Order: sequence, then C-alpha cells, then structure tokens
Amino acid sequence: MALYKEEVMIRDSFRTYCQEKLMPRIIMANRHEHFHREIVSEMGELGVLGPTIQGYGCAGTSYVAYGLIAREVERVDSGYRSVMSVQSSLVMHPINAYGTEEQKEKWLPRLARGEILGCFGLTEPNHGSDPAGMETKAKYNPSSSTFTISGAKTWITNSPVADIAVIWAKCEDGRIRGFILERGMKGLATPKIEGKFSLRASATGMILMDEVEVPQENMLPNVSGLAGPFGCLNNARYGIAWGALGAAEFCFHAARQYTLDRIQFGVPLARNQLMQKKMADMLTEITIGLQSCLALGRLIDDKKAAPEMISMLKRNSCGKSLDIARQARDMLGGNGIADEYHIIRHVMNLEAVNTYEGTHDIHALILGRAITGLQSFTVEK
Amino acid sequence: MALYKEEVMIRDSFRTYCQEKLMPRIIMANRHEHFHREIVSEMGELGVLGPTIQGYGCAGTSYVAYGLIAREVERVDSGYRSVMSVQSSLVMHPINAYGTEEQKEKWLPRLARGEILGCFGLTEPNHGSDPAGMETKAKYNPSSSTFTISGAKTWITNSPVADIAVIWAKCEDGRIRGFILERGMKGLATPKIEGKFSLRASATGMILMDEVEVPQENMLPNVSGLAGPFGCLNNARYGIAWGALGAAEFCFHAARQYTLDRIQFGVPLARNQLMQKKMADMLTEITIGLQSCLALGRLIDDKKAAPEMISMLKRNSCGKSLDIARQARDMLGGNGIADEYHIIRHVMNLEAVNTYEGTHDIHALILGRAITGLQSFTVEK
Amino acid sequence: MALYKEEVMIRDSFRTYCQEKLMPRIIMANRHEHFHREIVSEMGELGVLGPTIQGYGCAGTSYVAYGLIAREVERVDSGYRSVMSVQSSLVMHPINAYGTEEQKEKWLPRLARGEILGCFGLTEPNHGSDPAGMETKAKYNPSSSTFTISGAKTWITNSPVADIAVIWAKCEDGRIRGFILERGMKGLATPKIEGKFSLRASATGMILMDEVEVPQENMLPNVSGLAGPFGCLNNARYGIAWGALGAAEFCFHAARQYTLDRIQFGVPLARNQLMQKKMADMLTEITIGLQSCLALGRLIDDKKAAPEMISMLKRNSCGKSLDIARQARDMLGGNGIADEYHIIRHVMNLEAVNTYEGTHDIHALILGRAITGLQSFTVEK
Amino acid sequence: MALYKEEVMIRDSFRTYCQEKLMPRIIMANRHEHFHREIVSEMGELGVLGPTIQGYGCAGTSYVAYGLIAREVERVDSGYRSVMSVQSSLVMHPINAYGTEEQKEKWLPRLARGEILGCFGLTEPNHGSDPAGMETKAKYNPSSSTFTISGAKTWITNSPVADIAVIWAKCEDGRIRGFILERGMKGLATPKIEGKFSLRASATGMILMDEVEVPQENMLPNVSGLAGPFGCLNNARYGIAWGALGAAEFCFHAARQYTLDRIQFGVPLARNQLMQKKMADMLTEITIGLQSCLALGRLIDDKKAAPEMISMLKRNSCGKSLDIARQARDMLGGNGIADEYHIIRHVMNLEAVNTYEGTHDIHALILGRAITGLQSFTVEK
Repeated sequence: MALYKEEVMIRDSFRTYCQEKLMPRIIMANRHEHFHREIVSEMGELGVLGPTIQGYGCAGTSYVAYGLIAREVERVDSGYRSVMSVQSSLVMHPINAYGTEEQKEKWLPRLARGEILGCFGLTEPNHGSDPAGMETKAKYNPSSSTFTISGAKTWITNSPVADIAVIWAKCEDGRIRGFILERGMKGLATPKIEGKFSLRASATGMILMDEVEVPQENMLPNVSGLAGPFGCLNNARYGIAWGALGAAEFCFHAARQYTLDRIQFGVPLARNQLMQKKMADMLTEITIGLQSCLALGRLIDDKKAAPEMISMLKRNSCGKSLDIARQARDMLGGNGIADEYHIIRHVMNLEAVNTYEGTHDIHALILGRAITGLQSFTVEK
Repeated sequence: MALYKEEVMIRDSFRTYCQEKLMPRIIMANRHEHFHREIVSEMGELGVLGPTIQGYGCAGTSYVAYGLIAREVERVDSGYRSVMSVQSSLVMHPINAYGTEEQKEKWLPRLARGEILGCFGLTEPNHGSDPAGMETKAKYNPSSSTFTISGAKTWITNSPVADIAVIWAKCEDGRIRGFILERGMKGLATPKIEGKFSLRASATGMILMDEVEVPQENMLPNVSGLAGPFGCLNNARYGIAWGALGAAEFCFHAARQYTLDRIQFGVPLARNQLMQKKMADMLTEITIGLQSCLALGRLIDDKKAAPEMISMLKRNSCGKSLDIARQARDMLGGNGIADEYHIIRHVMNLEAVNTYEGTHDIHALILGRAITGLQSFTVEK
Repeated sequence: MALYKEEVMIRDSFRTYCQEKLMPRIIMANRHEHFHREIVSEMGELGVLGPTIQGYGCAGTSYVAYGLIAREVERVDSGYRSVMSVQSSLVMHPINAYGTEEQKEKWLPRLARGEILGCFGLTEPNHGSDPAGMETKAKYNPSSSTFTISGAKTWITNSPVADIAVIWAKCEDGRIRGFILERGMKGLATPKIEGKFSLRASATGMILMDEVEVPQENMLPNVSGLAGPFGCLNNARYGIAWGALGAAEFCFHAARQYTLDRIQFGVPLARNQLMQKKMADMLTEITIGLQSCLALGRLIDDKKAAPEMISMLKRNSCGKSLDIARQARDMLGGNGIADEYHIIRHVMNLEAVNTYEGTHDIHALILGRAITGLQSFTVEK
Repeated sequence: MALYKEEVMIRDSFRTYCQEKLMPRIIMANRHEHFHREIVSEMGELGVLGPTIQGYGCAGTSYVAYGLIAREVERVDSGYRSVMSVQSSLVMHPINAYGTEEQKEKWLPRLARGEILGCFGLTEPNHGSDPAGMETKAKYNPSSSTFTISGAKTWITNSPVADIAVIWAKCEDGRIRGFILERGMKGLATPKIEGKFSLRASATGMILMDEVEVPQENMLPNVSGLAGPFGCLNNARYGIAWGALGAAEFCFHAARQYTLDRIQFGVPLARNQLMQKKMADMLTEITIGLQSCLALGRLIDDKKAAPEMISMLKRNSCGKSLDIARQARDMLGGNGIADEYHIIRHVMNLEAVNTYEGTHDIHALILGRAITGLQSFTVEK
C-alpha cells in the first residue's frame, strides 16, 4: 500500500519546514516553557491546519496526508503536534461537522490561516476519563437568546493563549452541547497551569466560566450528547496515532546515531547485542504501527473505519512510542537526560500523549467492551 | 488494502477444510504424538502445497494467498502448518528455484499432489543458529558421477516419514550445495526424536547420512553457498509469520468465548477489567501483525521485499503469538492445561515456532545488523 | 539471615533423595502420565510429610524447613511437590488444625508415614476463583448421625489414587464445613482427568459425590466458613512460594550449563550478551524471591505473618518462576522442547502452579483489597 | 530479620527531618534547578554524612542504618540523595579507606559536618561505562613534589558547588590513582551542565583540569588501579539500592492515595481492577527489594558481601523503581505531569539513577560474567 504522489509531496515539504524551522526553536522553548504563537501562523500558511476539511480555505487532503503531517510535526515535538491537533481536530472539525454555514464561514478561514487559535474544553477537574459526569451547565435565557455557562475545564491545551474555545456543557434538557466561547467574554478566565513537565512547548491551562453569557449563534446546533466531543476526540486520536510514532522514529534514529558514534570498550556502542536487540524491537514496533496507521487512514478516507479501530491505534502508538522513547533515553546513558539530545523531552511528552484523549487503560476498556459486549468501566452490571 | 476475491475464496474454502477435517483429529494426534500422513494427500488435492509455484501442477497463487493458507492451517495446529511449510517452502521451493527442468518435472507434480512428502536438512547437532559451521560433507566421485555424503541433521520436521529430503552439504570446494536424497538410499537413516512436547502432531527426527551415494542428477545446480538454504528459509519464514498469527487468533477467540461463558462472582469472567485488558492487548497485536503480513505479502508479490522484512515479521509474529497463547492459557485457569481446550497445545507448539527457522534473538541480531551495519553475532570485529 | 544447622541438614539430606531417587524417574513418569505411588511412602520414611506438625508421628520442623523441603522436591518436579503439598498442607493440616483428637490419632500417623494418601476437594466445575459459590451440599441425618453429601469437585490433585479426601460442603445452616471421605464409600467416584499437559507425574481427577453417606465423626468440628479451606490454602501457598523457585533454580542452572557447553559462532552461547542478560535477570529474581520466602518463613514461625504476605509471595514466586522457565526453554533452542532436558516440563508444570491455589490475578486482587480497603472481585459496590 | 532499635531511631528521626524540612523545598528547587547548599550543613548536623565511618566526627552506624538514611532522603528526591551519596560514599569513603591519617584528620570532620562539600570525578566525556579507558593524566614533578593533572570529567554531581573533588587520573606508571583537588587551584574549572531534566535539585557539572598542580600530600596513597574508584562505587551503589526503593515507596503511596481520593464513574479509581493490579505489582517489588537490601546490609556489616551482590541490588532496585514510578505517574492521569504531585519528578530522577554508577545493562553484564565466568563487555575473546 503505497502513498499517493500528492501525499508524499505534502509530507516532504512539511518535513522540511519542521526540521528547518521548528527543530531549532524547540530546546529553548521546552526548557523555558515558552509557546511560540507564531508557529500557528506559519502552519496556517503551509495549509496544514484543518487539512482534511473541504473548502473554507482548507486544503482538503486525505486522512492519510493528515496523518503524515501529524507524524512530521511530532517528530519534532508532541507539544507542537498538540497545538496543531487541537486546532484541526478539536476546534475546526466540530465547527465544520456540527456548525452552521455562518459559523463555518465566520471561523474556519481564520482558523485555517492560523490567524486565530482555538482550544477545546471537555475535561473537568473531577471528570477526566468520565466526561458523562460533566458539571459545567448551560442555561438558556429566552429573553436575550443567550446561554449562561458556568463551570471549569482543566488540562486544556492552548487555553491560556487561545482566541476561541469550543467547550461542552450540559443543557437544561440534560444533553451535552458545544459552544464557541470568545476571549474577552465576561466571566471567562484561562489561567495557565504551572510546573508541567510534559508538553512544555505548548501552553496548558484551565477554562474557568463564571456565568459567561454566550449568544445562541455560538452554539453548535448539529449535534447533542457525548457524540459531539467523542467525534472530535476520534478525529484527534487518529492524528495522535500517527504523531506518536513520529516521536518514536526520532528517538530511534537519534539513539541509533548516538550508539554508532560513541565508542566504548573499543567498539561503537551499536556493536553490542544488547543495543541491537533494543533497536530491533523499536524498529519493529514503529514499522508495524505505521503500516497499521496507513491502513486505518485509507479506511477513514473510504468511510469504513470504526471508532474502535482508532482507539486501538491511538493506544498502540502511544504506549509503544513511550516505551521506545524510554529505551532510547536509556541507550544514551548519562547524556540521555540532557535536553540537547532531545530524547528526554520526548519521554516526558509522551507521558501526556499516552494519557490524554483516552488513557492507555481507558482505551483497553473501550476495546474490551467492543470485544466482549460487556462494559467494565463501572461497577454497574 | 483489501484481499482479492480469489484470495478470499482460497482462504474460505481452505478454512472449511481445516475446521471440518483437521480440527476433529488434532487432540488425539497431539496427545499420542501421531502424524496423520493422509493429511498431506488431502492438502495436495486442495492445491495448497507449493501454491505459489507456476506450473508443474501447482496453483500459482499470490504470496498473500499462501499466507492466508498458512494462517488457516496453523489456526488448527502449528505441527500441521510445519508439515505444509516444509513441503512447500523447503522442498518444492528449492527444487523450483534451484533445480533443473528435469528435477522440477520429476518431483514437483508428485509433491504438489501430496503423493510424496519431503523434508529439509540444514540444522546439525552442533550447528543451529550457525549453519555456516556445517559439518556434513559431499565428496564428488568422477567415476560414478555421484556424490558421497556423510553427516547428521537434526530437528528435521517430517524426516521419519518423508520420501525425499533436500539436504545441504559442504562440497570439496568449500561451498554449500543442495541435494535431493531419496528414502531407501544406502546409508540413510531417519530416526524419530522421542519425548517432544511441541509440534507433537508432526513427526520430527534426524537425518543420518553414512556415506550415502547420491547421483549427480540429484544435486540442485543453480545455487551454491548459504544463499540456497537461506532463500528457502526466507520463503518459509514468510509463511510462519502468517501462520503463527493464525494460532494466536484461535487462542484469542477461544479465550474470549471461554470467559464469556464462565460465570464467577456472578458475572462472566469477560466482565472483568483484567480479562478485557488482556483481550485488548491480544487483539491489537493480532491486528497490527496481520496488517503487516498483508503489506509484506504484497511487497513479495511485487518483488520489492527485502529479507530483513521477513525476519522482522517472522520474529514479531512468533514472539507475539507465543505471548498471546500464554495469556489465553492463563485466562482459562485450570481448564487451560487440558488439551481438549486446545490452547495449551498452541502454547507448546509456539515455543518451537518461535525458535525454528531463526530464533527470536537471532532475528534480532539480523535486524540489528541491517540497522547498524555492524554484525554482533560473533566476537570478531 | 542464616539457616539453622538443623534446617541445612534437612535440606541437604532431602536434596540427595530428590536428586538420586526422584530425578531418574521423572522423564518417563511425565512422558507417560504415570504417578509413582511409592514416592509417597518414601517421603513418609524421610519424615517430610506434614513436617511442621508437632506429634502424631510428624517431624515438627520449622516452617523454613518446610519451605526448603518444598523447594528441593519441586527442583525435580512440580507434580511431585503438589502431591506432597496436598498431603501436608491440605489434608494433614486441616485434620491437625480443625480435627478432634480422635481424628488426629486415627489419620495423622498413617498420613505422615505415607501409608495412606489424601486429597483435598474445594474447587468445583463452576467455581474456581469463587469458592463461596460452592454447590456441594451436606445434609444432616439425625437418625443415623451421618451427613449425606452430594456435589462434584474438579482439578483435584491425587484424587484418582487417594485413600481419603478432605472435602468442603455447604451445610443446611449455610456454613461451609470440612469432611473426611474414605475411598469405598458408596456414591463416591474419583475419575481421572485425561489429556493434561501439566503436572503429568501426578494424578489429577474429580471427586463425584452422589449422596455419599459420611459418619458425623468424619466431620472436622473446629472450623466453619471459608476460614477452613482458606487456612489450608494459605498453608499450601507458603510451600508453593518456595517450591516454584526451586523449579526456577533448576531451569536457571540447566540453561546456564547448556549455554556454557554449546558452542555457536566459535564461542559458548553463554558468551553472548543476550544470554548473560537473561541469566542476570533470572538469578536476580530467584535471589530476591528466596530471600523473601526465608523472611516470610521466619515470620510464620514467629506467628507474625499475615495471609496477604503469603499471597504476595505465592504470586511473585509462581509468576516469576514461570517467566524464568520460559526464558530457560528459549535458551536451549530446539533442544528446549525435548523432555530429556527437563525445562519444557517445568514450563508446562508452572502454568498450573501459577494458576492453582489462587491465580496470579486473584492474588493481585487479594493484595489490591488489602492495599486499598476496596474489593474489586465483584461488580457490587 | 528485624531492625535494631538504634536503626529504627536513626530512620525515624531522619524521616522527620526529610518530610518536614526537605519536602517543602523540593518542588521549587526542582522546577528552577536550584541546589540548596544549606541542606548539606543540615545533614551534617544530623550526623548522616559518612555515617558508617568510625571516628573523625562520623556517626559509626551500621550499613543497614546507612541504607535506611538513603531511603528516607530519596523518598523526597534522588537529587538530594545523590548529594549525600557523593559526600558519604565517593568523597569521605575514599579518604577514609585510601587516605593517610593526616588526610583523614584534615578532611573528614569538615565533610562530616557539611562544612565543605565534595564531588567525585571518574567519568569522562568519552568514557562512561568503560573507565579503564580514562584519558586524564597525572605527571609527577619531583622538584616540587607535586602532580600536574590534565583532563576532563563530566556528569559530576556537586561539581559546580563543591569545595573539593576526589578525582582519578592515570599516572606515568599506567596506574590509576586518586587525588584531592581543592576549589581555587589554578587550571581547575567546574562548569555547570545546563538543560538537565533529571536530578534538577542537585548541581551537575564538569571538572576541567588544565595542568592543575596538586601537592603530593593530596594524593590518596593506599590504593591504585580501578580498585580505588570501584570500591567507592560499590559503597555508593549499596546506598542507591536502598534509596531508589525509597523513591518507589513515595510513588506507590502517592498513587494509592490519589486513586483512593479521585472518584470516576461513581467509585474511587482505586476500586478498579486495573489499578489494584498495578498496586499489587508495585508493592510486591518494593517489599522483596527492601527485604533483599536489608539482607545485603547485614552481610556488609558482617563483611560477607561480594561486589556482585551490590550490582544485583543496585540494578534491581533502580530498574524496578523506575518502572514503579512510571506506573504511578500513569495512575495519576493528566495530573501526573504536574510537579506538585511529585511523581513526574521521581520518574525523571530515576532515569539518571538507573544509569549512573553502572547502567542497568552494565550491571547485567557484571552479573553475567560472575554467573558464567565469561566476560561479554568487549569483542575480545
């Protein structure tokens, strides 16, 4: 199963950008927890934001191309890929999939250009793996045709710097709906989370909503219930499945080169069986993981993919990439803890990547339910 | 990447045979170490022996179809698949690839029909992972135009019951060549190995050659050196990569059904998180393993595959399938040690499958050498 | 923490017996599923049956000595250790701990001599990990002062050859009580389980009770509820914790010697890093496992041990020993599947040992409950 | 095997200090890579520096007590334990073991009080696992009775802030000897390594020696060859074996409490089987690891320990603790990447701890050599 010529072109030109423009910035960005906002605009110029969307200034690529883009950017840093995933899958996708024509025209072109940046608010302080327990409420005010929204969202990528937020709240009818919040709305605050040792090159924060009044035209009308956020998450998880392997590939190549260059006991480290076995394991998992992502991408393009397929590969790619990064770090010995060798950063990043948008265990239970027909998330029979 | 219609037909009809004809025989065959010779004839009738060979009474299928066949038979038993692999990849393949037109016409149709059964002698008592150290010698006798061959081969699938043996010996010029030995030749003995707790439904033995005189026309002329046996092994390993996953699939499905049926603490075992996680892990590895085998099969059909790709998937499929079988056995609790549940048999079988035709570690070093350009098999620099 | 001189003597003399008398018999016993009944008498002569019991012809050793005995016999075969564990911990222990003076005097000396052999019936076809769900019933008949017992027990070590059986049944008051059944009682049958690929040197079967009439004096009066069988199991699990490591030690030493003796690529297999790493891992787990068993034994002797400590080490020893045996088998390559090298037998045995008397997962949940105060066995809150 | 009353007292009083004085400082120290020099003085006051040394103002405790101290401080942070290990095992120990009476009297009391801080220079930029390849040279000048030392050492804990450095250099006779360097000596520089994502609460740097002139009385006369630094490393590794488990214990307890407190799907996270299994695994490894450290400590106190025992437990404790910390981080979900929960810090720290003073793989090869009698570090036969 080969790539199409256009996909190869997209991949190669974006790889050049990532290696030439992102790679030189990442060590200091990560060391000092600095988010370079201009990266979003650069990506917008390259057409990689919301790339699978047709029209509205978006590129309209295949899902395989989307995967290749995610892989290239995460080869540099999972934080950068997170910024991009959020914009593409969690902000642009829901507006495109669940929004009105007016909403699409208003927001998508600006998001596609990277002129504005979005974030996505689902997770709450007390509800991570269990979003159905959501406490954020939206109350409709017929007089003003607005919703009053109160609640708190946390661990929100981009929130401290985002211009808009797609957030999910429980309405009075008990159904969950999506809303577009705009920076500057009264009662809205987005404090940054400090002391984060993962994804330090992207900003993470909360979304605090204290009776924020949101006009009705900012509600996404074409979905209700958890299907809304879950559709977004599936979209994003697909990109993560590719992206995490990009990080793993970087670690593999870096460790390979390091062990070829470093001489101990008179031979390159790479001459040792213990090193070669690690590399054989790493490359095997990368290869079979990527093959499967490619097969999944084609299925999505053909509208034949089931959400469980995405759960399987999000889980597989993240868990395996984290293992690969850890092995790679180990192969660098003492140097492996210095950020200039990059791998320790990937190790820290992939901890978050393995956790967010469905932890490794939660996806195991999603798969388990699909396999057995029995849910084991809760103690209810 | 879909299967072609013809491949699906081959798979489905052969699956029916395997489930209806092989499955009922296997428990007793394995329990009593009995090899059913007639299975080879049945397979011959179905056209699954040497299936990728064009002409000579062979089916001429794709390599993907060959993989599907291996998977179906190993879903029943790795011993049966071993019999088939040896016949197809280690006996028919070298005759087809390295033999004369006369050799092909003489042997291939009878082998394809299962009328005669072959075996393959490379491994020696002192040379398993290290075939270059081979001690079996072939000495040419110009007067009689024959070779005199002496040496011993061991762990040879089919040897006690085979009609012919393709064996490899070192000639006087120091190069390794292949020879077709026929049962009944003077000095040839094929004692069975007793007390084997793996692949018990197939016969395993030695090939003892005490000055066996072999006519020159039984030498395979079109190859010399380790390229000969290695070409055969690559062919066989490809089938093993598919086959082992077939065994894993059986174990997965059997464990799934068992845990759905068995009630403990008031709910099916399958309702437990610990069980679901095991099943999620198992199905993930089966899925990404099979996707990769399929991709590899297409590459072989397109003549684009490198031997290291086969090493990678032989190793991955075998190692992972062994793990899966062990997990499945564990899921059956006490019943997991009874042969009527089949899984313990797969556990025992896959130990051999993970070891033969390149152990898990040897393939790691093959991959390591390809990755680094440095060999670490020996202590030589 | 050293061993006492007496413990060393017991260990060394019993080791001699095991190596000189048991080791030569085991290959054929296992290959042909033959249980040598005379072994029990030999053990009786050596004083290793019910060794911790004071009086009644028992040796009255420390629990550390009991552990050392279990380790020596399982170094040969887990089946033999199972026979011994059942006799000592599951038959003699409950009679000693829960029986009347008459019961003790009647049964213990003959059991200690190995003159008669016992078995233990708790597990039922539908209740493995969940013994509280027991279906076997005992109904009291005041007129005859007997109990009528009906039900079925399965996976019972020794049952086909045992003279007596300590079985557990639910009485009319809903409480579980223990009974001593004697071979020959009407309605009692003990069919053997065929096709077992684990513990083949010991006999395993069912206990079928069809209105078996048992005199009141065969009831164990001094315990009721699951405390009875659980007390026995704890006793047995302690021995298993030591024993499994004995099997692991054998595998380690055998694999070490094999790799020292076998030359490949011009050096002993043991010269390879991949082999040395496996051995380092194996020896580490054996060492820290044994240290912990010793510490636990001293705590039991001091009556300071909690049942969860036993769960922890039963689980640790069994899971780790199974892994070690598998690694050792792998190190032997093709020869690893032949019973003459013994390791494949330990691999098969340890599957059962890891499962019986609390599976690896069940002990995880026992420990989890102790750690958290929350049970997660059932779906009830 | 119980602790002596004095050991319990030492442990408990030091635990109080660690929890009350160190714990409140660590988050910010780690976040901002700040080393609190005053901690060394506080430790000096408590008598925990060089605690096993007799006389010279040292406490003269047992090695078990030393282990307990290391465990308590590393329960807070591996960086703090590293500072302490270096001072005790790598600076005070060699002066005590290899130094003259004058050297001991001059340096030990001030080091014991924490008045001055030391560091240890063995590892060089090109020689990590392979110290015999050392390039640092010491040339004797008979005229001035001094040595001129040139070379570079790297990854040196404490170097940027240390008052003295025990460094190892190759003399003209080809033998390695130890020297005490003092801050302020001409030609000596100790630059800090920036961008470290492990052990951030301790300072790490290089020792650059450009013709540093060192008086002969600063040479350690009573050892030569690698026995000198290896003796120090063994001493330190013993402390690490205990310390790493202290970090693991913190992670275990923190994850346990977190999962008890956090409610998802209506029950505490700790109610889930997947969580309980992780905790059972963690506690098992901690328990058997600590038991073994205790047994080793007693052997050292009895002068019966072999260096390989220390390798085994350094390797086991570090590898297992790293795994435990990773599991714990995973159990905290998103919160697991925030430094306020401490665990991500332990994950990062333990990467270095698993690597320094002999990597996990190097200790495997040390054990492998002891097991087989065959070295596999180099390609030489």
